[in-house]
Amino acid sequence: MSNRVCISLDAMGGDHGPTTVVPGAAIARERHPELHFILFGDEAVVRPLVEAEPRLKGAVEIRHTTVSIAMDDKPSQAVRQGRGKSSMWRAIQAVRDGEAQAAVSAGNTGALMAMSKICLKTMAGIERPAIACLWPTVRGESVVLDVGATIGTDAEHLVEMAVMGSAMARIVLDVERPTVGLLNVGTEEMKGNEAVKEAARLLRESELPNFTYHGFVEGTDLGRGTTDVVVTEGFTGNIALKTAEGTAKQIASYLKAAMGRTLSARIGYLFARQAFAALREKMNPSRANGGVFLGLEGIVIKSHGSENAQGFAAAVDLAYDMARYDLMRTIRDMLEQTPAVAAGLETGLIEK
Amino acid sequence: MSNRVCISLDAMGGDHGPTTVVPGAAIARERHPELHFILFGDEAVVRPLVEAEPRLKGAVEIRHTTVSIAMDDKPSQAVRQGRGKSSMWRAIQAVRDGEAQAAVSAGNTGALMAMSKICLKTMAGIERPAIACLWPTVRGESVVLDVGATIGTDAEHLVEMAVMGSAMARIVLDVERPTVGLLNVGTEEMKGNEAVKEAARLLRESELPNFTYHGFVEGTDLGRGTTDVVVTEGFTGNIALKTAEGTAKQIASYLKAAMGRTLSARIGYLFARQAFAALREKMNPSRANGGVFLGLEGIVIKSHGSENAQGFAAAVDLAYDMARYDLMRTIRDMLEQTPAVAAGLETGLIEK
Repeated sequence: MSNRVCISLDAMGGDHGPTTVVPGAAIARERHPELHFILFGDEAVVRPLVEAEPRLKGAVEIRHTTVSIAMDDKPSQAVRQGRGKSSMWRAIQAVRDGEAQAAVSAGNTGALMAMSKICLKTMAGIERPAIACLWPTVRGESVVLDVGATIGTDAEHLVEMAVMGSAMARIVLDVERPTVGLLNVGTEEMKGNEAVKEAARLLRESELPNFTYHGFVEGTDLGRGTTDVVVTEGFTGNIALKTAEGTAKQIASYLKAAMGRTLSARIGYLFARQAFAALREKMNPSRANGGVFLGLEGIVIKSHGSENAQGFAAAVDLAYDMARYDLMRTIRDMLEQTPAVAAGLETGLIEK
Repeated sequence: MSNRVCISLDAMGGDHGPTTVVPGAAIARERHPELHFILFGDEAVVRPLVEAEPRLKGAVEIRHTTVSIAMDDKPSQAVRQGRGKSSMWRAIQAVRDGEAQAAVSAGNTGALMAMSKICLKTMAGIERPAIACLWPTVRGESVVLDVGATIGTDAEHLVEMAVMGSAMARIVLDVERPTVGLLNVGTEEMKGNEAVKEAARLLRESELPNFTYHGFVEGTDLGRGTTDVVVTEGFTGNIALKTAEGTAKQIASYLKAAMGRTLSARIGYLFARQAFAALREKMNPSRANGGVFLGLEGIVIKSHGSENAQGFAAAVDLAYDMARYDLMRTIRDMLEQTPAVAAGLETGLIEK
């Protein structure tokens, strides 16, 4: 089958391990019958779960591993103990060895990134990797990066992220020429730190055949979906993402309290319960679960550790899209065609 | 009257100028009859508005000014054109000259901060000023700073902000010993950038007689109200604040759409309309309007430029609290009693 897409899964990752990973894979395969999986984990636990899933029939190869990375292991510790033998490492290695087109893990982010960097290496032309997520907006979704791979940044890294984020947006949002904004504290040219101002200058002055540089965007633009791609440094991006999650939870708790306070409100809730269910679905973080590691020689997706099977399935869907529509080639093509980055390569500002 | 609190107002600031500032002052005075105002602005416009407000009777002195700072003036341009004569400058100057205990302006933030720094000067023991806001949480409110005064930071500045934020929390939240968190990408000790890690070490190792250092907090902790005070660098803080505002608006628009979609939902809305009104009030940004400039030799409050009279009144309330309960003395006392900052003063790390 030419359309077959093979994804490697770290069956032991996340708060619930294989009891979430296996049914999650099954849900995703129902949506994409061409999906095949290599599952790395404790065979004694994984095999019965797989055999109980008719939707996974004939689509799974299980490879036994004895080491699992804990959610609170330090990255260095995880690499020392898990290199070569943990379910997480082996899932990444399957991508490096060309057996799988993407890897998905719900394990701890720091360990997954450390192992991915060692095992897959950083892409030529990319300084440092980034983690991109799909941010729900009133207009649909935007690609936001970096949400926590790297602390601190410079202009070149921001420009590289603009290119990589555009490549991902082209695939996931299906827009030929995505718009890109740089996250800043205001939209005027003089605002922000040196890295952001210099990146804006580079993007303004470069010929950009694959995407359109929109300019600076602010925190309020994230939910508005002002641009298809929003680029920011990892410290700020991670805090923005978690602040949005926290605000959504906060409002949900206000809403729940308000709807239970009076008899009239409770009656109103009954009438409007379908509307509330639709709203809950819209605010459900599982729908947009999955952080895409960009800038490595291979595709790795991080699923949220506390997600249920539906959430894990969303991360697998994302891996499927990235593999099926060849994220790696799209990034390479876009990097080559972007003079700002090419110039960085030539002047040695960006290490090959 | 010993309780009399005098506030100077930039009557020309904000999107709506005196048509918002004057009724806003009247609303605040109804709540605090001991309030008196010095209004700086175009007398021909301001006087009729004041005379139409019985609640302001005998409580306002109008001082005519001819220059107003526009919302899009660059700070340097605003200082050049407005120094000594604009309504904004004169309102700040009234604080410097001891005529008013605090100044409130809805004018542009950059100009207001630039003028405040020149006119009032930075406090002894403080490297750079910060802007603090009241962040609504499920438990009440937290003080969050810096939300945009300074781009970039170091450990000493973060520690200073912990002290200043605690002083403000003691006054506004009425807690004797506030808890302080440092905003970071994770709660583990090894996470974050150098400034945050070093500030954490300073706070952990210092004797803190006035507040309790809680540790690192994440973006999700902001809405939860995990600590009374959250300290972060201005770039990240500004983006977090605007991301939360944007997310709240986004959810409100989902909610509105969901409640109008079916007949049943519309009926439900009618039954629950009081609950929705309560929710709207809870989510109303006007309730917590006002950024407090900390670290200057005087109190300046920034009201949001697009706020209505209720919003401006909230900023005046905040100025009233800060003046009435002597924010300046509380900050000075706390600074003196905090060895980490005192040590910085001695070693010359912090300029006097």
